[in-house]
This record gives sequence, C-alpha cells and structure tokens, in this order.
Amino acid sequence: MSKIVKIAIDAMGGENSPKKIIEGIDIVLQKNKNNFFYLYGKKNLIEKEISKKKNVDKYCEIIHTEDIILDDETPLAAAKKSKDTSMWKAIESLKEKKSDISLSAGNTGALLVISRLLLNTIDGISKPALAALWPNQKNMSVVLDLGANVECNEKNLTDFACMGSALFKSLFVNENPKLALLNIGLEENKGNDVLKKTFSILKENQTNNFQFEGYIEGNHIMDGDIDVIVTDGFTGNIALKTAEGTANFITKNFKNSLNKISLLFSYYSLKKFKDKLDPRKYNGAIFLGLQSPVVKSHGSTDSVGFAHSINVCNKIVHANLIEKIESNLITVDPK
Amino acid sequence: MSKIVKIAIDAMGGENSPKKIIEGIDIVLQKNKNNFFYLYGKKNLIEKEISKKKNVDKYCEIIHTEDIILDDETPLAAAKKSKDTSMWKAIESLKEKKSDISLSAGNTGALLVISRLLLNTIDGISKPALAALWPNQKNMSVVLDLGANVECNEKNLTDFACMGSALFKSLFVNENPKLALLNIGLEENKGNDVLKKTFSILKENQTNNFQFEGYIEGNHIMDGDIDVIVTDGFTGNIALKTAEGTANFITKNFKNSLNKISLLFSYYSLKKFKDKLDPRKYNGAIFLGLQSPVVKSHGSTDSVGFAHSINVCNKIVHANLIEKIESNLITVDPK
Repeated sequence: MSKIVKIAIDAMGGENSPKKIIEGIDIVLQKNKNNFFYLYGKKNLIEKEISKKKNVDKYCEIIHTEDIILDDETPLAAAKKSKDTSMWKAIESLKEKKSDISLSAGNTGALLVISRLLLNTIDGISKPALAALWPNQKNMSVVLDLGANVECNEKNLTDFACMGSALFKSLFVNENPKLALLNIGLEENKGNDVLKKTFSILKENQTNNFQFEGYIEGNHIMDGDIDVIVTDGFTGNIALKTAEGTANFITKNFKNSLNKISLLFSYYSLKKFKDKLDPRKYNGAIFLGLQSPVVKSHGSTDSVGFAHSINVCNKIVHANLIEKIESNLITVDPK
Repeated sequence: MSKIVKIAIDAMGGENSPKKIIEGIDIVLQKNKNNFFYLYGKKNLIEKEISKKKNVDKYCEIIHTEDIILDDETPLAAAKKSKDTSMWKAIESLKEKKSDISLSAGNTGALLVISRLLLNTIDGISKPALAALWPNQKNMSVVLDLGANVECNEKNLTDFACMGSALFKSLFVNENPKLALLNIGLEENKGNDVLKKTFSILKENQTNNFQFEGYIEGNHIMDGDIDVIVTDGFTGNIALKTAEGTANFITKNFKNSLNKISLLFSYYSLKKFKDKLDPRKYNGAIFLGLQSPVVKSHGSTDSVGFAHSINVCNKIVHANLIEKIESNLITVDPK
C-alpha cells in the first residue's frame, strides 16, 4: 500500500472557500484514498460542506481557527494578526511535522511571509523561490522564481536551478531536465553580471540532475525545448503576467472575430482548445527551499483546479522533493 | 505645401533588401510625395530595383557603399569594420544634417552602437532608449526601453517617461498620454529601489506632458488604459519577447484545434483577426534620446511593413519630436 500523504489545508483561503476545498478533496478521494487532510478554519462552515459529501469525513480532521487572512491585507499586517488564522495554523502543522505538505488558496504575499517566519530553509539554500508550471508545445515547463525575490545574486539563481530541476523530476520524469536561464539574448556576454556569473557556475558544474542549455529568450519559453527556466522573481513575475495578458488578449480578439456561423461550426474546436489550455490543469505554484514544501492554489480556481493542486502535493511528497533538492545542491561561495 | 522629409535609408539591411526597401518607398510615394530618400548601399543592386518602378528615381539619391553589416555580427565587430557600410553612412548623413531621420532594417545591436558613436544625446538625456508600438484593446501603446540599456537608474527611467510621452504625442494625439511604470504589483512599496525612486519623482513632478498613473502589471499592458509604459531594457525585452512567444503559441493552438469544416466557415473571420493584429502595422522601433531620431524596421518584414516604418519616420519629423523631448524634460539629480 502506498504511503498516506498528510496535507495541511488552509480551508478558508481563496474565493468560495471552504466549499471548493471540500469539493476538491472529494474529487481526489474518488480516485485516490491515500490521503489525510488537516483542515484549518471555521469549524461549522467546514462541517456543513463535509456533511454534503459521502466519504470525506473519514479522511479529514478539522482544527478550528477564528481568524482569516484577507486577500487585500499586506503581508506585514497579515503576519501580525496571524497567530489564530487558518493560514498560520496550517503552516505551523508543517513545522510540528504533523503533516507532510501545506496547501492554501489564500493571499500569496502573506503565505510567503508566514512560511518563511515558521519554517527553516533547507541547509545550503540561500532564499526560497516560487515555482509554477507553464504550458508549452510539448507538455509543461517549471519556471522560477515568479515573485518571491525581487533581487537575486548568482548563488540564489544557482539554488533555483537545483530546486527547479528537482521539482521537474518529481512531477514528470526521471530523465534529466533541460535547464536554461531567461535572458535577452543567447550569447554568453548578454544580460547583467548576475546572469553571466550564474552562466559560468552552471557551465562548470555540470551535474547529473539537469542538462544546462545556456540562455533562453522570452519568445522561446513555450516552444517546449527547455524543461526548467530560471530567473529572478522580478523578471519571472513580469514574464508570467505578460504571458497571461497576451493570452487573454489574443483569445478575446480571436473569438470576437468569429461570426455567428463560424462560431456554431467551431463549437467543438473551441471546446478542445479551451480544454487543452485549461488553467486549472496548471494550478498549484510551489514555494521551494523551505524544509517542508508549501503549495499555493490560485485564489479564483474552482474545485477541479483545487483537486489539481492536491495532486501536485501528492506527487511532491511521493517523490521526496526535499531530499532531492538537498542532494542536488551546487556549492557556490555566497556573495 | 507640407515640408519635405529627408530620410537616410540603409538600403542593404534586413532580409530581401534592397528589393523590399524600394517597393516600400514606392508604396509610400503613391500616397505622399513629400519625401526624399538618401539610399546607402550597393549602387547596381539599388538601381536595378528602382528601374522596375515608375517614379521612384525622382525621389531618391543613391550613395554607393562597399560593405554591409551582417545580422550575426557582434556590435563591436560591426562598429570596427563599419566606416564604409551602408548603415554607418546612413547614420553619418544624420550627423551631417543632410537628412532629418535615419531608417534601417539591419542588425539592431550594431545600429544602436553606431548611432551612439556618431550622434550626441539630447542635452539632459542620460541614456537613449529603444521604444516600440504595442497593440492593445483600444489602439496602441508606446513601450520603452526594449533592450538598449540592461541596467537603469531613476534618472534614466524618468528620461524614458519624458521621451515616451513625447513620442506618443507625435504619433497619435495631442492629448496628454497616460503613463505608468511596469512593475510586479500596484502598491507604492512594490518592486526594486529604482522603481520606487522613479515613482516618487514622477508623482512629485506632474507635468503637462503626461498623466502619471503609477504602476502597471504585465497582465494589463494590453488592456489599453495606459498609453506609455516605462521599464528598463532588460525587463522590457523579456516582456516583449514573452508576449510575442505567447501570441504565437495561442494562435497556433487555436488554428490546430479548428477542423476542416470550421476552418472553411472561419476563413473571413480568421482573415479579419489576422489583419487586425498584422505585425507589419506595428513595424518601426524608435531609438530615442539622440539629437536625431533613428528608426529600426523589423529585419524580416516585407515591403508593406517597411512602408509603415517610413510613415513612422514622417510622423516623427512632422511632429518635431526632438524639440518636444527637449521641452518636456524633468530635472533629476543624476546618481
């Protein structure tokens, strides 16, 4: 029998919670019963949702918390008030090793700050990073950092390379992922000093954990030739959001250009297109580099998207991600 | 009668030149004869193309140059060999005030380096920047810097704000453009130190030349609410290329998802969509901040795209862009 994965869930985070949380758990349990969920939040609300489902109660324990961190609170304000919030308690359960991984659809900034306050970084990791799955022509890439660290040095980027490739191996395959640094050109002399230094560190330290492919430009992120793309949190956040905005713009203009007849004849084609790029399939950003992994679900996703983020948690725990990261590290003199 | 705009053209730059150059000139002359073109490059090749057109020869003077800068040459190598190249001579004609503006579809890196070598910056401008037109839901925005300066301080970004808004006013309207800084969040405390300092400079120096709207995130670039978007050259280049890659990815997947019947019924809709987003309409990046403006056409564009970049040149000269920039500058103590 496979290991039971214990997930600490902030049951109040995100739109339409705890309803979508319990429905998401129900979707997962229909295929996989090797889970146990610690649910943090308003007991009566959670119980009400659980009572609508047949078998969910056997796989859950509710821990009542009085407070909730709101989406518009600054990380600092959230951290101050947070001791009796569902988010804080869920992360605390990781610290106490009661659970294997934690999951929240709440305020991202607050989640990063609380995770760093409560959890230690992995020995040798300078800064944790936020990683996510990015669709491409062939499958998906891992991209990091997406906003946890506005400024990074070569030690940070080298750590991100090790963590990102360990994550890719956990989620997809056992082969060595192809890895590249996001830059504004392909030549060795392109970009800023931090990128140039990281380039030479990764070139000189070829490991068995990834194959270093040099630089990648923004227009090739989605080609599918690179599995792990490393960048600082500022650039990664700009790239991710620009891609999101462009995708919305093109899709909207495309649909607006179709007349009624072509819309009718394109119904199934449009559905196929939508299914392939369904953002719920890519739901679940991972906060990497802490002694326990923390997963962030999109706040506005639904139960299907939330179920996907639970599956991400399961893959990460089964693949021993933290051990993989620890054994993959490249030693760099910190600046 | 309107002023004759004198354009110095590197007739050898880009794919399929000088053929597309002469065809592009012919397209422009059919609607507007207030132009004179100095064409730099291989005389026999240019003459051969001109002889195929009816009236082009009256509006052109050919200046023979022996060398060409290739697309894969580094800017340094190009600058060394460049004294008798079509690109160098075209920029030199600006320096000598023989022409009003210069246009090339050649190697971008080399063009920036040669322009900086030969032309002075406008008094008060710390660094020139590369600006381009970006389609949005309502019309087009000006985005800069797109790669001329990897690292920027608050003085550079403030200059970019002044230059970008002057360019927007030259190309489109006389109203004050709405301007924002590209960042990873909307709150005043978001981003790096340079952005925070630039934010407070622009907030305190409200001018009549633009309306400062604070920060904009990558997913809102194409909404059309902001006319001028300011960023450093590294971030701008990543954002532009990521948008380009995403647009290709979505369009390709959309078309692949259409079956034969829906493709048949969507023919005119797809054509409408393609026309609206035709990249040739956005052709013409502008190198701003030098005492004469230099326009860069996409290397792979055709004669229609090249004609668009000639129109951009005409608008810039007619609107007295350089004077507009000079009178718009905000004084910032350089770091």
